[in-house]
Amino acid sequence: MNRSTEKKAVVLLSGGLDSATVLAIATDLGYRCYALSIDYGQRHRSELKAAENVTQSMSAELKTIELDLRAFGGSALTDDIDVPEEESEGIPVTYVPARNTIMLSLALAWAEVLKADDIFIGVNAVDYSGYPDCRPEFINAYEEMANLATKAGVTGNRLVIHTPLIDLSKADIIKQGTALGVDYALTVSCYQADDEGRACGVCDSCRIRAAGFEAAGVGDPTRYQSA
Amino acid sequence: MNRSTEKKAVVLLSGGLDSATVLAIATDLGYRCYALSIDYGQRHRSELKAAENVTQSMSAELKTIELDLRAFGGSALTDDIDVPEEESEGIPVTYVPARNTIMLSLALAWAEVLKADDIFIGVNAVDYSGYPDCRPEFINAYEEMANLATKAGVTGNRLVIHTPLIDLSKADIIKQGTALGVDYALTVSCYQADDEGRACGVCDSCRIRAAGFEAAGVGDPTRYQSA
Repeated sequence: MNRSTEKKAVVLLSGGLDSATVLAIATDLGYRCYALSIDYGQRHRSELKAAENVTQSMSAELKTIELDLRAFGGSALTDDIDVPEEESEGIPVTYVPARNTIMLSLALAWAEVLKADDIFIGVNAVDYSGYPDCRPEFINAYEEMANLATKAGVTGNRLVIHTPLIDLSKADIIKQGTALGVDYALTVSCYQADDEGRACGVCDSCRIRAAGFEAAGVGDPTRYQSA
Repeated sequence: MNRSTEKKAVVLLSGGLDSATVLAIATDLGYRCYALSIDYGQRHRSELKAAENVTQSMSAELKTIELDLRAFGGSALTDDIDVPEEESEGIPVTYVPARNTIMLSLALAWAEVLKADDIFIGVNAVDYSGYPDCRPEFINAYEEMANLATKAGVTGNRLVIHTPLIDLSKADIIKQGTALGVDYALTVSCYQADDEGRACGVCDSCRIRAAGFEAAGVGDPTRYQSA
């Protein structure tokens, strides 16, 4: 058996810089990768197209699940609330309620069907901007729960939630992805990217990304709306 | 302020006997109830109509979220796999991968938006038929995780997952619901009910339900396809 087809992993893929790097890391570790993208009604629709392009570039399988989180409201990423252009204190309005919990749960369902014991998610505790569901203690508690939730938890296989970026700065993420050949021009991080995936350059996510390329000493391939 | 409007609860409602009883219990405890029904592509579509009828009968608010779990496959409840008519060993084919994990995660998102600290789910460890995500240790782990996942977990309010049926026999559930005035004729438990909500009478769920009414000494209002 080819080593690269031995172990399956489900990789949560948003189409942004971080999750593209995670997909490259999981692929490099020898996993056969099943990328899961969630169409949750995000205003930045080009993110979904970016997820397709990234998956193709790494020869992974992609599944996109529709789940309209706008039904619950409560976030600038899904509602008609302005995305802030200034740095904010505490939990930002771009927080989507229970988003990582929901996405990990969908990944868990797919992992169970695929008989995959490994799930990868690109959460980051350094640049996490105050999102509670990006903290290591959340991930640990999720893994505990997941092992009780599923057939795996009953039959004895241990399911592992991998967070290879959790302690990395944005610059270190970019350096690692660049070394693995990630084409960051395909990724979209901006909370209000236009239909062609061009970034606004002013939202939290754009500011963190641009500073990351600068700190990494890597040329920024991001296409901006004003460029 | 009217006591009944003081505290909000999100109640997972399938349209079956158990969750209808849970909605009655939460209402009786004085919660203002927000019922959440998930259209996950279940073959027994009349369950969704039952959820509407049950919610109306108890004057709760209902939200139905579409999430097509057929995309993952792996269950007789969503796939074209025969529902068994004999009692089965171990985890049955009617198990939907990570279903309760996913549904609790959606309830968590709504609870966070509503600023509700209470979620009710009708899991039952007695008649749970081998589903791993109906065990008390799963619920406890979920509650731990949920308190780390959300703004509530950061600001200090404790979120509680209520499982009022977890130790009850089906007969005791029916007795309690009957005392609270639940109209079980509105509920659909059958895994392969027809469009009018009439039950097959032979699947696991039908057998457990019928035995429950008999053991409770309560007249069974279930409408059967052969009747």
